Amino acid sequence: MNRETYELMEKYMRSCMEDSAHDQEHIYRVLYNALDIAKTEENVNYDILIAACLLHDIGRKEQFENPALCHAKVGSDKAYCFLTEHGFASDYAERVRQCIRTHRYRRDMQPQSLEARILFDADKLDVAGAIGMARTLIYKGAVSEPLYSVSSGGEVLTGENDTAPSFFQEYKYKLEKLYSHFYTGRAEEIAKDRQQSAIDFYNALYHEVSTPYQNGRKELEKRLK
Amino acid sequence: MNRETYELMEKYMRSCMEDSAHDQEHIYRVLYNALDIAKTEENVNYDILIAACLLHDIGRKEQFENPALCHAKVGSDKAYCFLTEHGFASDYAERVRQCIRTHRYRRDMQPQSLEARILFDADKLDVAGAIGMARTLIYKGAVSEPLYSVSSGGEVLTGENDTAPSFFQEYKYKLEKLYSHFYTGRAEEIAKDRQQSAIDFYNALYHEVSTPYQNGRKELEKRLK
Repeated sequence: MNRETYELMEKYMRSCMEDSAHDQEHIYRVLYNALDIAKTEENVNYDILIAACLLHDIGRKEQFENPALCHAKVGSDKAYCFLTEHGFASDYAERVRQCIRTHRYRRDMQPQSLEARILFDADKLDVAGAIGMARTLIYKGAVSEPLYSVSSGGEVLTGENDTAPSFFQEYKYKLEKLYSHFYTGRAEEIAKDRQQSAIDFYNALYHEVSTPYQNGRKELEKRLK
Repeated sequence: MNRETYELMEKYMRSCMEDSAHDQEHIYRVLYNALDIAKTEENVNYDILIAACLLHDIGRKEQFENPALCHAKVGSDKAYCFLTEHGFASDYAERVRQCIRTHRYRRDMQPQSLEARILFDADKLDVAGAIGMARTLIYKGAVSEPLYSVSSGGEVLTGENDTAPSFFQEYKYKLEKLYSHFYTGRAEEIAKDRQQSAIDFYNALYHEVSTPYQNGRKELEKRLK
């Protein structure tokens, strides 16, 4: 890819995400992860991969404003229009569109091309390990969801089989389970390297919050007449 | 303290914090931490300690709406008024007020009574370890501040000597340094037990985000013509 094309796409990505400066850093992490994964694959088309990484979340704003929309669908169509309007061949724009269309986990729509699979894995890596924990906590803060739920008996729930949204529920429902089913060996390797940090953090956090509830409630009972 | 008094204060605390359900869980953690610390101290006045813990953050909403206000000052005055209006002795209300007034770290205003020192330590414990990391991340999400800053040369900054607000900056500026200067031995012991989890999480997170930037930027340069 020539530098001018890269900068054109980067500028468009930034214009689509100007309300959320820290989401832009996610784009660069995904791009850099994808380039790392690509080194271990053969016959990667970098023109498609770099464009798909840069533009994969440009539909986020539309989904945020209307949760019925899917950002992968909106973003893939926006990318196609942007590319064809800027003189790129429709075959190329269509291949970029397909990568973006399938980057989000959906049973009925799996990534087909090599570049689509690399993007999928690179994006998934950004919810693995400590970065996945940190991004999820930041998200919970942004949407005002709690760290954990407390049972009617006053115990901190682990998140397992919880129905109320919380960080622990998201961990048990999604974050804990994402370390297999990558398309590429390199992504699986990076994810496995990060896994223990996420496990350790969840265990430490659960211990730190659940112990005071367990002991503190008993202690409080002693002090109340 | 009798149960009826506890429930009266708890109800008032909840009414002051109804907009922020997860902040209420902070109140219970502080109360339970304080009861744990109190077990190792002599001559604790539990009527003062429990009231001060329950009511210590009731001025948060006012500070949120007007950052020029100090929630410790506002909350201490609100607590004094609430207690005297509900028939508690003014001497008792004053002692609770003093605990709340000094629970926030200020060089010029340090906690004097045993109960004030226990509240101070119990509140500070909730920024130690994994819970401190999690609460800070949730806060950064709520106020839309990023995880880290990137230098003009494209490197992820550690947070050390950073001026722009970010999670890493907060870690280096505050969270990393809070493990000494507790008033009570028990609080220092609990904090030290939690310290390694926070260090490990920061190190893992920094490694996970900085490595892709370092390698990815070089890889990108190779692919751009």
